[in-house]
Amino acid sequence: SNSVRIAVLPGDGIGTEVTEATLAVLEPLAKRHGIGITTEVLPAGAFHYQATGEGFPESSFKAAEAADAILLGAMGWPGIRQVDGTEIAPQLDLRFRLNLYAGVRPVRAIPGVPVALAHPRARDIDLVLIRESTEGLFHSRGKGLVTEDHAEETLRITRKTTEKLSRFAFLLARRRAQTRRRKGRVTLVDKANVFRAFAFMRGVFDEVAKDFPEVDNAHHYVDAMALDLIRKPWDFDVLPTENMFGDILSDLGAGLVGGMGFSPSADIGDDHAVFQPAHGTAPDIAGQGIANPTATLLSAAMMLDWLAARGAGQGFADAASELENAVDAAFGAGLRTADIGGRDGTAAVAKAVAARIGG
Amino acid sequence: SNSVRIAVLPGDGIGTEVTEATLAVLEPLAKRHGIGITTEVLPAGAFHYQATGEGFPESSFKAAEAADAILLGAMGWPGIRQVDGTEIAPQLDLRFRLNLYAGVRPVRAIPGVPVALAHPRARDIDLVLIRESTEGLFHSRGKGLVTEDHAEETLRITRKTTEKLSRFAFLLARRRAQTRRRKGRVTLVDKANVFRAFAFMRGVFDEVAKDFPEVDNAHHYVDAMALDLIRKPWDFDVLPTENMFGDILSDLGAGLVGGMGFSPSADIGDDHAVFQPAHGTAPDIAGQGIANPTATLLSAAMMLDWLAARGAGQGFADAASELENAVDAAFGAGLRTADIGGRDGTAAVAKAVAARIGG
Ligand SMILES: CC(C)[C@H](C(=O)O)[C@@H](O)C(=O)O
Ligand SMILES: CC(C)[C@H](C(=O)O)[C@@H](O)C(=O)O
Repeated sequence: SNSVRIAVLPGDGIGTEVTEATLAVLEPLAKRHGIGITTEVLPAGAFHYQATGEGFPESSFKAAEAADAILLGAMGWPGIRQVDGTEIAPQLDLRFRLNLYAGVRPVRAIPGVPVALAHPRARDIDLVLIRESTEGLFHSRGKGLVTEDHAEETLRITRKTTEKLSRFAFLLARRRAQTRRRKGRVTLVDKANVFRAFAFMRGVFDEVAKDFPEVDNAHHYVDAMALDLIRKPWDFDVLPTENMFGDILSDLGAGLVGGMGFSPSADIGDDHAVFQPAHGTAPDIAGQGIANPTATLLSAAMMLDWLAARGAGQGFADAASELENAVDAAFGAGLRTADIGGRDGTAAVAKAVAARIGG
Repeated sequence: SNSVRIAVLPGDGIGTEVTEATLAVLEPLAKRHGIGITTEVLPAGAFHYQATGEGFPESSFKAAEAADAILLGAMGWPGIRQVDGTEIAPQLDLRFRLNLYAGVRPVRAIPGVPVALAHPRARDIDLVLIRESTEGLFHSRGKGLVTEDHAEETLRITRKTTEKLSRFAFLLARRRAQTRRRKGRVTLVDKANVFRAFAFMRGVFDEVAKDFPEVDNAHHYVDAMALDLIRKPWDFDVLPTENMFGDILSDLGAGLVGGMGFSPSADIGDDHAVFQPAHGTAPDIAGQGIANPTATLLSAAMMLDWLAARGAGQGFADAASELENAVDAAFGAGLRTADIGGRDGTAAVAKAVAARIGG
């Protein structure tokens, strides 16, 4: 089919602003490529919790589950907490309930956007972290034991999910290798020198690697990876890792290439996928119209690409690359958002990117 | 007393080389300051395990326990593993058995040593990570559950250790504030938005903070901290955190200021302390005489400072600052090790630093 239904969860704070800007770009893009995109905006998030006592209404979940893809803004608010002290995070519910095991977080230097590292090769950064997103330490979310004296959480790694995650990583590396000059390489990030669970994870990964002899594979300890993402991030390609490690390393990666405002993400399972900027709700700048919508625009491009791979049609693939290219071209031509010291607001970015579509 | 006994565990690979270089500098330093340092070199590590079946002989542990301080090189070797697949790591045994809860890892830009970030303020970096080193995820080390289908580890946080860790952090911040212009600030790094155990940790930290009204305090999520250590590391002062988080963030921090070769560490408890470079055994360059001993030299300076605070005498405090200043001066004057693209080997660094002592 060349028509899809997208569930949109704008969420809290700047989540609503960047989502609006992205929908404004998707409209002309869809027209130009002759693809049908209908959207349904659904309530969820911290303010919804405050107003109704429900952070993620079951009706919103059901509608999201029924859609072809889910586009999410950002959710959570520092002052609004559940009784156990944790925040409202429907995006985590989606990952668990829809079994979105592959958290895809590209780290790519965008033309014109300042990079953090002084090294001349910093502009060559182009890697993808795959954060496992249904187990690991997050298995324990909301289930931790707390007594007067101590507290415990359980990190859990399953063979099944590690197999899927590894396979996903190798398939992605193979696909990336086709569009790039270099040979694909998958590097598992673990802490197998200290923990049996990570030695187990490594063993499962190694088994899957045998099915992909044409892709290089390697292992790296998570602490060494934190160092090497500073020393030589341009050396890496596809990096699958445990949930908590991926949470930390993907923010590190975002810092290298302009910050969270430029960092898209996709949480992908066998049947569903959520696309959202890696950033949060940014209470300090919410409501001012200055939030950078680039991460959401790039997440939307990932969504179109994923829909194409699922059979929605070539128009979606074309729209995905045109959107990514339009973002690159706009920043390459001097667009500058507040987070990188410029004056272009949320709407201005949408306008500049839309102007390069079909141009 | 102005005489101390140091247990020295050189360990594996470059561990032995950097330790030798450091002892060579300690000798003239001790003479000049009229302080007595006797050393006892003890066997432990991966090669000792390979040769004897014991990674850390009980006799070495006992001798280390009886000493006034412990100086460690580096331990572990990729090919040498225990039956459960994990590496030999006597440094972890020491942390647990001697209850060395405060893993002090300074991140400071050394004059003349290239920094990773392009930002002009990158040379102002001067923070200290305090990695809790006896519990957290590492509570589970060697105890993880592994079945055919899955594996589990337990992250554990206790009130008692969190209180000690927090108190240690505030005392350090207060002491640092006295020697610097800025007000001290302690920022707890946690993941309290998702995990009850971290909400618990935060609660305990907040209680301790009340005893130190003169020191600022704050919280930061670990993922946001990974980002901010790239965006604005010069904004931070003292950063206590959970064991696994500290392992990752301290390597990230090392990457900002020249790498592991320039990153000292101390694992401190109520009665004992181990001082060691943050780097590993570096199999790729071991035996070539090109390892950078700076991290070990700076760790030795931390050791002298700690001994002074424990009552060993002012001579130790003076020796500590002279050693740190000598390192700074040597690099400031153009010393360049292989890890930063230079040609000065291990012995050359020792010689250059020793030459600035008493000069
Ligand atoms: C907001 C938070 C619950 C979430 C997470 O930890 O997964 C965020 O940090 C992310 O990376 O998507
Ligand atoms: C070698 C390894 C066991 C150790 C750790 O994880 O603590 C090291 O990474 C460190 O930081 O001291």
